[in-house]
Amino acid sequence: MEVVTTVQEMRQAVARARAAGARIGFVPTMGALHEGHGALVDASVAECDVTVVSIFVNPLQFGPAEDFHKYPRDLEADKAFCQARGVDFIFAPSEKEMYPEPPRAFVEVEELTAGLCGAFRPGHFRGVTTVVTKLFHIVMPDVAYFGQKDYQQLAVIRRMVDDLNFPVEIRGVPTVREADGLAMSSRNRYLNPEERRAATALYRGLTAAKALLEQGERNADRVRQRVREELAKEPLVREQYVEVVDADDLSQVSYIDGRVAVAVAAFVGTTRLIDNIVFDPSAERTE
Amino acid sequence: MEVVTTVQEMRQAVARARAAGARIGFVPTMGALHEGHGALVDASVAECDVTVVSIFVNPLQFGPAEDFHKYPRDLEADKAFCQARGVDFIFAPSEKEMYPEPPRAFVEVEELTAGLCGAFRPGHFRGVTTVVTKLFHIVMPDVAYFGQKDYQQLAVIRRMVDDLNFPVEIRGVPTVREADGLAMSSRNRYLNPEERRAATALYRGLTAAKALLEQGERNADRVRQRVREELAKEPLVREQYVEVVDADDLSQVSYIDGRVAVAVAAFVGTTRLIDNIVFDPSAERTE
Repeated sequence: MEVVTTVQEMRQAVARARAAGARIGFVPTMGALHEGHGALVDASVAECDVTVVSIFVNPLQFGPAEDFHKYPRDLEADKAFCQARGVDFIFAPSEKEMYPEPPRAFVEVEELTAGLCGAFRPGHFRGVTTVVTKLFHIVMPDVAYFGQKDYQQLAVIRRMVDDLNFPVEIRGVPTVREADGLAMSSRNRYLNPEERRAATALYRGLTAAKALLEQGERNADRVRQRVREELAKEPLVREQYVEVVDADDLSQVSYIDGRVAVAVAAFVGTTRLIDNIVFDPSAERTE
Repeated sequence: MEVVTTVQEMRQAVARARAAGARIGFVPTMGALHEGHGALVDASVAECDVTVVSIFVNPLQFGPAEDFHKYPRDLEADKAFCQARGVDFIFAPSEKEMYPEPPRAFVEVEELTAGLCGAFRPGHFRGVTTVVTKLFHIVMPDVAYFGQKDYQQLAVIRRMVDDLNFPVEIRGVPTVREADGLAMSSRNRYLNPEERRAATALYRGLTAAKALLEQGERNADRVRQRVREELAKEPLVREQYVEVVDADDLSQVSYIDGRVAVAVAAFVGTTRLIDNIVFDPSAERTE
């Protein structure tokens, strides 16, 4: 495994691999790697000849009041994690390498970013789509892997890739959960033990919603209400949103007659967590 | 020469050329080709192994009151023009091929698009940067050629490519002019004979500005005033703007101590024309 820190070296490394006929898989991350990232890496290593993991805490996707400065950074642990999983290249550029000048060019996806997290994190998705565009142009992967845990991000990236004809395939990888159901997240390490216990309310809410849906409930408000009941049981948990949205365009749904995502965001103490499930009434199967 | 109309065929044609080791040159156009485009094509044919010319009148870069519907279209003449110049591929997609869904993802360059044409054509540069992003992703050229006649467009594209790490080199090609100095433009064909004569006022203004600058004038307002005097002599010409801007970031300049562009936009009858010169006080040379 090689750790690369400049755009030029990364381009050269990938160009060599591509010239040798390799299929390039790419997993963009902000580091602080956990088993959720592990599932993305495993998928890439299984499907591609060369796997590149980027580790870059992107300032552009954090709001001024958000946790950019305290976001966990542990490059040594991340290196060991990637090495053990068969990653070929880590791309770990500095902020100066990624933004040598104050950025003026941005990629924006409209409508899909208006609701859910986008409504509470103005500029967040613009930061994500802009940095992913840069990373795609640097790595030029054949396939890129994103977690379903960040459901809106995955939908936004898919739309960006389709609309702008990026020559890359996007794969969504199912959410990896702790034994008690909490979705893996780098931010889970902010939680104290009491908060950590309370944080399972998100999954319990989604599990209750799933049960309702599988029993045939199609009224989105009743599904949302069921999630809220579970969140309300935990005094440490403060809901930010519970929404039922079209699984592709993320528009709000009132009657469920197609594939939907049930998505939740909540503060547990001062830590903001998100989670979701996807339900397809025709398949009668919940992801 | 081959004329390709689908994204998939274009990708395959370029992939074959690239696999054979070819350097790919790209000239994006809206068709109605003239000697200005010819200079771009000639540069590409001279420097690259394979030249792709796209011909697509991009609705996204026209305002609702602009000339999208009457914009000249003549694919047969354009084919003959490209064939004669040694073009390898024309990419001439339909609107449906380029925008199968209403677009939600856009590329935007801020600040550089606020002034000059951007101030009078809201959304124009967003349309340009978005379609050029799409075309770059489809063609994946090594080098792309843009005319200096559309000076702001060239500066905006350069900034987009730098900021977003597009793996492409951008070449600016000097403006090609008619014998009387009028900058070549597909829109010149809108002019009636009287307007055609009056239209030389833009170049006469810029030529007068150039003479002033070469005599040592460094006050931008006096340079602008000189251009205006020439425009004012023609009753058929109505100035939209005359600006002196930094040649790279396009910010307004009052005292000229670095490379600047003197840029003008004016209506001649109902036809909007633009032109510019670049002046570098250290080189004492005007482009």
